[in-house]
Amino acid sequence: MTAKFIVIEGLEGAGKSTAVACINDVLKQHKIEQVITTREPGGTPVAEQIRAITKAEVDGDPLSDTAECLLMYAARAQLIDNVIKPALANGVWVIGDRHDLSSKAYQGGGRELQSLVNRISDATLNGFKPDLTIYMDIDPALGLARAAGRGELDRIEKQDLSFFERARESYLSFAQQDESIVTIDASKSIEQVQQQIRSALARFLES
Amino acid sequence: MTAKFIVIEGLEGAGKSTAVACINDVLKQHKIEQVITTREPGGTPVAEQIRAITKAEVDGDPLSDTAECLLMYAARAQLIDNVIKPALANGVWVIGDRHDLSSKAYQGGGRELQSLVNRISDATLNGFKPDLTIYMDIDPALGLARAAGRGELDRIEKQDLSFFERARESYLSFAQQDESIVTIDASKSIEQVQQQIRSALARFLES
Repeated sequence: MTAKFIVIEGLEGAGKSTAVACINDVLKQHKIEQVITTREPGGTPVAEQIRAITKAEVDGDPLSDTAECLLMYAARAQLIDNVIKPALANGVWVIGDRHDLSSKAYQGGGRELQSLVNRISDATLNGFKPDLTIYMDIDPALGLARAAGRGELDRIEKQDLSFFERARESYLSFAQQDESIVTIDASKSIEQVQQQIRSALARFLES
Repeated sequence: MTAKFIVIEGLEGAGKSTAVACINDVLKQHKIEQVITTREPGGTPVAEQIRAITKAEVDGDPLSDTAECLLMYAARAQLIDNVIKPALANGVWVIGDRHDLSSKAYQGGGRELQSLVNRISDATLNGFKPDLTIYMDIDPALGLARAAGRGELDRIEKQDLSFFERARESYLSFAQQDESIVTIDASKSIEQVQQQIRSALARFLES
């Protein structure tokens, strides 16, 4: 089986980190040992510098929505070109904590910049996409309450609830249209969520 | 007369800084006192952080061509939204050291990514463009020799001569197609170059 690119998506507090660990476990059980994990925005030294710009708040110079969108794709392009594609070419599986669907949901849905995001995505990615995306669906109010328990919220986490509701609608809409996106009910207990992820991944690996 | 956006373009060593000072002088002579100057990539605190990423060389993580292109437009969007448009709306003239034409020339021509650059440019700028662009045309070998005299070259200045030759061809090609771009022969003496700039600007102000 050639190396695959598997992505975890979802709102803040959906349990993406736990999901990444779960996927790692399942891959090991299937004797897939060559696996790296990445995160977006970030995942390379330069992309992490870009991430820092998207997270910070600079007095008197708020990040414009268009600039935010372009920075997300700059970090993504850097990660794809320098990490994801070389790994896949060398037989190494890649588990990504967020990818293009996050921009579609947050900048497209949340910021209501669908047209800009779609045009930048098409121009930048040239059809490159994950083999499997596991979308952890959660009510934004519940997810944000979980995320707030982890400490201070960053610039994007501080958006109001309607932003995340629009992002969730985008996630659900894309998940309906694309068979490579599997939706998991992330409001359930950790055990039930992990069971859903294991099942989805088993179906993918056996297909 | 409503405030205008005037841009200086050209290869390294073409004399853009001197040209900016010259334009400032001419505007003052025309009693245009509300003028700011910007530079690209950069010109806002956040855009200067993006500039730093485009200039640096990170061991083991070379900036990918696609990421470079997206970072240039991220910095540009930030500058337009937070500096250029607010200034123009307040009657303040803007003199820009580089703008979109630099991406068309360097990333489009130099990196041979014309299609990507055009698509990102169209999606990002939505028709926003300078009222006047003064392109300082110079043979790349002469320009680079001048630039080298100023100190260490940055990541982009270190490209080989053919990169800058392609960038120059792009500049000249766009200048031929767009009446708002005036080409100046920057190989001449400073006095002759300044005379050409003064004439071009006088024609623009009187039109």
